[in-house]
Amino acid sequence: MKIAIIGHGVVGSGVAETLLQKREELKVKTGVDLEVKYVLDLLEFPGLAIPVIHDFSIIEQDPEVSLVVETMGGLSPAFEFASRSLRANKDYVTSNKELVAQKGAQLLKIAKEMGRNFLFEASVGGAIPVIRPIHQCLEANSFSEVSGILNGTTNFILERMIDDGAQFDDALALAQKLGYAEKDPSADIDGLDTCRKICILASLAYGKHVYPKDIHIEGIRDINLIDVQYAASWDSRVIKLIGKSKINPEGKLAMIVCPMIVRRGSLLSSVNGVNNAVLVRGDLVGDIVLYGRGAGKYPTASAVIADVIDCAVHRGSRREIYWEDSEEPAVTNYLDELTQMYFRISIREKEDIDTVRAEFGNIRVLTRKNAAWSEFAFVTEEQMPEREIIRKIARCGVLVDTMIRVESEI
Amino acid sequence: MKIAIIGHGVVGSGVAETLLQKREELKVKTGVDLEVKYVLDLLEFPGLAIPVIHDFSIIEQDPEVSLVVETMGGLSPAFEFASRSLRANKDYVTSNKELVAQKGAQLLKIAKEMGRNFLFEASVGGAIPVIRPIHQCLEANSFSEVSGILNGTTNFILERMIDDGAQFDDALALAQKLGYAEKDPSADIDGLDTCRKICILASLAYGKHVYPKDIHIEGIRDINLIDVQYAASWDSRVIKLIGKSKINPEGKLAMIVCPMIVRRGSLLSSVNGVNNAVLVRGDLVGDIVLYGRGAGKYPTASAVIADVIDCAVHRGSRREIYWEDSEEPAVTNYLDELTQMYFRISIREKEDIDTVRAEFGNIRVLTRKNAAWSEFAFVTEEQMPEREIIRKIARCGVLVDTMIRVESEI
Repeated sequence: MKIAIIGHGVVGSGVAETLLQKREELKVKTGVDLEVKYVLDLLEFPGLAIPVIHDFSIIEQDPEVSLVVETMGGLSPAFEFASRSLRANKDYVTSNKELVAQKGAQLLKIAKEMGRNFLFEASVGGAIPVIRPIHQCLEANSFSEVSGILNGTTNFILERMIDDGAQFDDALALAQKLGYAEKDPSADIDGLDTCRKICILASLAYGKHVYPKDIHIEGIRDINLIDVQYAASWDSRVIKLIGKSKINPEGKLAMIVCPMIVRRGSLLSSVNGVNNAVLVRGDLVGDIVLYGRGAGKYPTASAVIADVIDCAVHRGSRREIYWEDSEEPAVTNYLDELTQMYFRISIREKEDIDTVRAEFGNIRVLTRKNAAWSEFAFVTEEQMPEREIIRKIARCGVLVDTMIRVESEI
Repeated sequence: MKIAIIGHGVVGSGVAETLLQKREELKVKTGVDLEVKYVLDLLEFPGLAIPVIHDFSIIEQDPEVSLVVETMGGLSPAFEFASRSLRANKDYVTSNKELVAQKGAQLLKIAKEMGRNFLFEASVGGAIPVIRPIHQCLEANSFSEVSGILNGTTNFILERMIDDGAQFDDALALAQKLGYAEKDPSADIDGLDTCRKICILASLAYGKHVYPKDIHIEGIRDINLIDVQYAASWDSRVIKLIGKSKINPEGKLAMIVCPMIVRRGSLLSSVNGVNNAVLVRGDLVGDIVLYGRGAGKYPTASAVIADVIDCAVHRGSRREIYWEDSEEPAVTNYLDELTQMYFRISIREKEDIDTVRAEFGNIRVLTRKNAAWSEFAFVTEEQMPEREIIRKIARCGVLVDTMIRVESEI
């Protein structure tokens, strides 16, 4: 089977290299011969054993190319390339999470019309098999939760704060130095990357397209070492950036992306370094956790190639991945969801604490060494709608330094 | 598609019930209508909405039945049913780990000849997607290790010893009371169940059938609470029953099933209760961990039904799961493999310790409260062939109470 690869960056070159090096091995294993006919990129790559082209229409018009791999990211021109490839009767495999999160429903519809595959295992969780397990291995389940640590950069930064007592800025600088964070790290640390990925997982698990714009997102920029210490003082809990989607008690889809305090012993608490983990809760299976490297050249290439092989081996029978588009936001307002909240506040007088207790009833007071007398940290004990929590703390008339949700379900 | 289910025990009834209850839902999701035409069992099940039969030849001779699900376990008559089903041009889906571990290569060969599927996702790791992720999602990888906690019963027992300080017998009795352990628990606690599962995973990952008889197996019967305490004293390590398969430094397949001391922080150390976890190490992806419930009615049914759907949706195109049979044992002698060992020995005089030090060089001495003066626990620091470790400890002339391997790689 002849393939074209769009984009020769980190992931694209990993795919090209691996398909070249493992061509014989994969032929023996799978029975299909995978030949990369073109690499499309803006740049030249002298010495590359594959012809480099710059004009997409060469791919589009070449009937020999039956599959297009795209690894360049971004919506434009990726969306155009995807729809044109599918309409030209080619399967399309992508690692582009923005494309899938924004245009997944549209592209799946075109794929369905054309009887072609639109596959995107590499768009979530890098190396970790996630899409295929949810779609194919757990298909008999109804899902009530799909959540996870979906961004390695932020997980690395938080880990440095937790384990080494590093300040956020220093941990970020280290991540940049090690190549885990980009020069402009905002898509990672402000949570947008996690949001795109949890939108893809939620769309797949619940069958309706969830758009990133409808999700409440909070990043980790405001996480302070003091809060990390308070979390640790509460049975060694840790702060993790979580993308969360669950069916709430009224049967509606609730989603959020934010840092959360996770109990030690939960599997998500032990996700270390730049790794990712996805927790899937199904009615038949209970909890399944899938864990591994969330990014990187070869890990991501592995996921791309899994899709390529799937298309090649089952060229006759389309993968039935599908979800509906939705005009209405598919999710609830996060302020209506029940939660438990950690607060760090500045008090002016001791009576402020009495006011807090009067508003919230039972609270868990957290302590740390060398705290100023005006610093007061606590966790609300009762689950209540976030809207109510906000109203109560506002009524206390205290200065809120930080508030972080407490994750009790995963 | 019409299906016959052989065996109406825990798993079989879970499959039948789920297929009945979710028939419409699955039809919408997958596009295929799954109808259970027969249940074959020795017993009658009055009131069951599916005809119960007792004669396999009815299934064999019914051309309407294109898929047989078998959940009864054991080799006979399962092997006969499997080969006759495949030869009668029916796909065969099984949760029977003994069948796959003993007869996998033979049945895969028949399936290949007949152009039919022989699938067994439910035979390892219950609910956890394992077979399909290794086979389909990580296909571009060469594997250097596949290991895991594959038996929930023993994991539960060890956890009670570690967390609650329970003695082995009490923990076993509790597991039996809760229905996690059978009345005759030997297949679980002596490691045979783990061995069958790791043989299936190794056969799949390395492409050659590995037979349980060729694997060195040690169970957890001899694990003493004292050893659990010593392990905990060494940076909170824990003892877990591990099925291990890896490519050794000479490129050969090394396998063992035995209790191992695992470092706290390793993902396998936090596998709790009756859960299972499988670690897969690939050249492209690094480490992937798949975690979830290793057994149970609905979790296992979920895995069986995933295979059923796969067969139904891709009736035209066979799954290319395959491994070769091998006459020769596919594995090395475990005594030749490098390891690190924990010993608890009884000494007669203080000079015995000097002898131990003289033999092993650097050792890590472990301590616990209230130990008798004659009790001495240590860990060999250097990796060396197990044969050499045995020779050295024999030369010490001390009484060995326990020896447990130390897992340093996962």
